[in-house]
Amino acid sequence: MRLRHKPWAKDFMVEHPDVVIFEDEKVKDWKEIFGNENPIHVEVGTGKGQFVIGMAKANPDVNYIGIEHFDSVIVSALEKVIEAEKPSNLRLIRGNGANIEDLFTKGELDRLFLNFSDPWPKTRHAKRRLTHAAFLSRYENVLKKDGEIHFKTDNRKLFEYSLVSMSEYGMILKDVSLDLHAQMPEDNIMTEYEEKFSAKGQPIYRLESYFKR
Amino acid sequence: MRLRHKPWAKDFMVEHPDVVIFEDEKVKDWKEIFGNENPIHVEVGTGKGQFVIGMAKANPDVNYIGIEHFDSVIVSALEKVIEAEKPSNLRLIRGNGANIEDLFTKGELDRLFLNFSDPWPKTRHAKRRLTHAAFLSRYENVLKKDGEIHFKTDNRKLFEYSLVSMSEYGMILKDVSLDLHAQMPEDNIMTEYEEKFSAKGQPIYRLESYFKR
Ligand SMILES: C[S@@+](CC[C@H](N)C(=O)[O-])C[C@H]1O[C@@H](n2cnc3c(N)ncnc32)[C@H](O)[C@@H]1O
Ligand SMILES: C[S@@+](CC[C@H](N)C(=O)[O-])C[C@H]1O[C@@H](n2cnc3c(N)ncnc32)[C@H](O)[C@@H]1O
Repeated sequence: MRLRHKPWAKDFMVEHPDVVIFEDEKVKDWKEIFGNENPIHVEVGTGKGQFVIGMAKANPDVNYIGIEHFDSVIVSALEKVIEAEKPSNLRLIRGNGANIEDLFTKGELDRLFLNFSDPWPKTRHAKRRLTHAAFLSRYENVLKKDGEIHFKTDNRKLFEYSLVSMSEYGMILKDVSLDLHAQMPEDNIMTEYEEKFSAKGQPIYRLESYFKR
Repeated sequence: MRLRHKPWAKDFMVEHPDVVIFEDEKVKDWKEIFGNENPIHVEVGTGKGQFVIGMAKANPDVNYIGIEHFDSVIVSALEKVIEAEKPSNLRLIRGNGANIEDLFTKGELDRLFLNFSDPWPKTRHAKRRLTHAAFLSRYENVLKKDGEIHFKTDNRKLFEYSLVSMSEYGMILKDVSLDLHAQMPEDNIMTEYEEKFSAKGQPIYRLESYFKR
């Protein structure tokens, strides 16, 4: 993701408190924010927001939250949310997925999406991968008992790593596709990266998993 | 695998009792048969034997056994074993992998290989897949505590199924490759099917897994 410095980004986000919430804001009562008790699905590393916006429009009875840590990227998502007339079941968090336990209470989430997460190919950066055991442990805390992780990527090495990492952590694989677009599920919402990489003919890998407990 | 009836097959096997053992033979004292206490690695669905023969030659300190249930196929393996001058650490069993618990005692095996197993694509045939829970339970019984299953295939659907089946059974994935030949491991021994399908440019999938216990 190319990063340009956007000095106006902060002000622009602050002007839309009905969409963007900052990681360090004190009170996060999601039932109050959404005005209902619908299940909450979170995407970590939302990028420009195409996926969460598409999901929020397709599933009005689910609340969606996209977490993104780069100002210069999240503002593109914000622009698209405004264009989509701010779906009432959608919010963006400007923050780091590593702090997810500060954003939600224990067992508050029904589902977690990871889409085309940064691969961090070097072994010494493995800890930064969003499917490293350190992250899985955080997800386990904020997910409900049968809560699921849905993960898509074009990156073979990251997917291989994630299958092993989740398995060794004690997660169960519920569903795996090694070429998602070969039999595209009707309800698949494409992310920006998914459009880009599948157009190049690369297979898209996908899994659903949950914690055994 | 094209099957031709070979009426001479049975006699040919009986002539080589130092290679072929029949499933229904009473005594199977593998330490006595091999004349040592080396670890035993078994391939279920050996086909024409290229893999077990290559492994036996490459690893003289491991005992190899290939199980194959079709006379017309196992005789091709027997021919190759004879050509290879009958490595002393190699045997073939004419029998059905489903009966593996009658062939070995509890915890007798160190490793189990499944290579390009028949995919049985129809859901109603799922029970015949060599990675169905019913088979995993048999493997669990004959494998040592940390014994491993090594599985290779070109069949995407079977591999997807097997990842989920093993995971749901409670097995742990130790290693996964979604394109084995992209970085071919030095010690990879190709099977007949592997040569055929990789030559067509299809990715070869591979996993290593073990039972959590
Ligand atoms: C490769 S992009 C993929 C974007 C989008 N999910 C897609 O599929 O098109 C990964 C995004 O995740 C964000 N990201 C990576 N690590 C993160 C973290 N720990 N917390 C929040 N966002 C993160 C990056 O800033 C980037 O925008
Ligand atoms: C598709 S071929 C693959 C042969 C070889 N492993 C390879 O990779 O080239 C599968 C083989 O497994 C054998 N097979 C299938 N199910 C079996 C079972 N339950 N017990 C023994 N052999 C079996 C078939 O007869 C066939 O020879």
